[in-house]
Amino acid sequence: MIKLAVDAMGGDLGSKIVVDAVLNYLNEHNDVEFYVVGKKEELTALEGKANIVDARDVMGMEDGALSILRKKETSMNKAVELVSSSQCDGVVSCGSTGAFLTLATLKVKLIPGVKRAALGTFMPTLVEGKYTLILDVGASNENNAEQIAQFAEIGECVYRNVYKKDAVNVYLLSNGAEEHKGCPEGKEAYQILKNHQYPWFKGNMEAKECLNGSVDVLATGGYAGNVLLKSIEGTAMMVSSLLKESLYMNLRTKIGAKIAYPALKNLKKRIDPSKGGGACLMGINKVCVKAHGNANARAFQTAIEYAINMINSPMIDSLKEKYGTKD
Amino acid sequence: MIKLAVDAMGGDLGSKIVVDAVLNYLNEHNDVEFYVVGKKEELTALEGKANIVDARDVMGMEDGALSILRKKETSMNKAVELVSSSQCDGVVSCGSTGAFLTLATLKVKLIPGVKRAALGTFMPTLVEGKYTLILDVGASNENNAEQIAQFAEIGECVYRNVYKKDAVNVYLLSNGAEEHKGCPEGKEAYQILKNHQYPWFKGNMEAKECLNGSVDVLATGGYAGNVLLKSIEGTAMMVSSLLKESLYMNLRTKIGAKIAYPALKNLKKRIDPSKGGGACLMGINKVCVKAHGNANARAFQTAIEYAINMINSPMIDSLKEKYGTKD
Repeated sequence: MIKLAVDAMGGDLGSKIVVDAVLNYLNEHNDVEFYVVGKKEELTALEGKANIVDARDVMGMEDGALSILRKKETSMNKAVELVSSSQCDGVVSCGSTGAFLTLATLKVKLIPGVKRAALGTFMPTLVEGKYTLILDVGASNENNAEQIAQFAEIGECVYRNVYKKDAVNVYLLSNGAEEHKGCPEGKEAYQILKNHQYPWFKGNMEAKECLNGSVDVLATGGYAGNVLLKSIEGTAMMVSSLLKESLYMNLRTKIGAKIAYPALKNLKKRIDPSKGGGACLMGINKVCVKAHGNANARAFQTAIEYAINMINSPMIDSLKEKYGTKD
Repeated sequence: MIKLAVDAMGGDLGSKIVVDAVLNYLNEHNDVEFYVVGKKEELTALEGKANIVDARDVMGMEDGALSILRKKETSMNKAVELVSSSQCDGVVSCGSTGAFLTLATLKVKLIPGVKRAALGTFMPTLVEGKYTLILDVGASNENNAEQIAQFAEIGECVYRNVYKKDAVNVYLLSNGAEEHKGCPEGKEAYQILKNHQYPWFKGNMEAKECLNGSVDVLATGGYAGNVLLKSIEGTAMMVSSLLKESLYMNLRTKIGAKIAYPALKNLKKRIDPSKGGGACLMGINKVCVKAHGNANARAFQTAIEYAINMINSPMIDSLKEKYGTKD
């Protein structure tokens, strides 16, 4: 049975959404043993259903690397330790990204050969059932060319193994499709990938095209990747709001909306932001999934499901094999 | 009467869309004298309606700075020269952004005191009639902290004067709202703006929030700004496509869509990508508007309208006054 550590603190909406997410998951599945870390008095609803690990402190958003490691009583530190000590197979947290990256890198450790972990997220696209893996979506706020080029390698390896797809295509995010386009480190990453003559490297891609369903993997530095991810989310929410507002315009449009309801439900299913279930730190020895800071119970449950899928997938083994350190 | 130079070449769809855009504009207005630059045999439909300036060459996407200046027979070079020689009040082009920036900077010249021109675009938001000015959306692919901080200043000045709004709020695009978030040059720009104690500087903003209608100006380096702009466009198009697909699902949803048609029309009006009429090079002595490379006639016409609005606005004068070089 999979053992999953869950950090119940650090999210904007408190531990209640984490408790609800775990309970909802357990109502539907029985394949996971949870270790939920947080203030035990806030986790009483989980008694008898999950292992409760008491933690009195919460990781702040502004904590620097030293303070992150020192704050041993934080729920995040304790949750990550459950993984680094091999008691658990993976961890989910909606706390500070920077702290999570630091703890995962220093305690669970990078797969040898990996320069830096990247937050990878599978985004739904225009083509139903087709996902594009985007990485890094914000583990770092600065990456050099070697790191970005390696994110492309990691993405290719993960996508090929997770989807059992032979010919994966990988693009670099850029401000134009041409070879000479891009930020300086992006242009350099392009040359590194080109020099390797990777058959899967297909060149640059603009943000506009990346969700049309033709792309398997889109590699980028973490800052631009974060801007990309957040603006996709923001725009999808904005268009949904405008649609709703328009459909409430008058009686006629309300009636039309009622009749067209199955279509609107289908649209919602396709773009539901709460399904954006977080991002996995790829390149770490174990599965570490970061949920949104403002995740609700539904979104946190999706992050749990994402972690379990990744644990069940050959992601980690395939990366260890690629970089020559498989046990 | 306003005199506007129009580069008819360099767009993906050829000069026909430019001809159509000019004709459509002239059908509706009579306040502009056009100078349309391109292969004269492709512009015959404009005879008697606009000044036709023959140009035999088109600026390539890959031209470097030297070759850009050398290619004097290109439509872009000739169109920009109509402005630098003061024959025209502004110019619109859908050719290469890099070439346009180079020509504008070297021939029409930066307003003294401006370090670098920024492409600024007014994006529609969740609030009807409210626009957010985002700059730079891609004139540069690399900006230092001083440039980004100045983009914020330029944005504030332009927004205040164009919208006659006293208390403008200005944010820096970042990967989080907290002060310590951002890419290295963004963090440094934050400190520059903070040290100036500008009352209008309100801190960092995530891409997700920037179109909620609360933001007047969002300043960013050109690479991230371009990713932001393109992913907004791409996502809006994707959601529209998914909505259309959903509404065509079955007879019931088709009937609902028919009845709710006014709502869908309203939505389309609010998010129509062809209304994204381009971006203005802010910080240059004259109005230089860049239309999308893949602009259709409708989008190019919006770019023309944007240029005319900017020419009629106090944008240039206010920037000259700000930096102390008003005639």
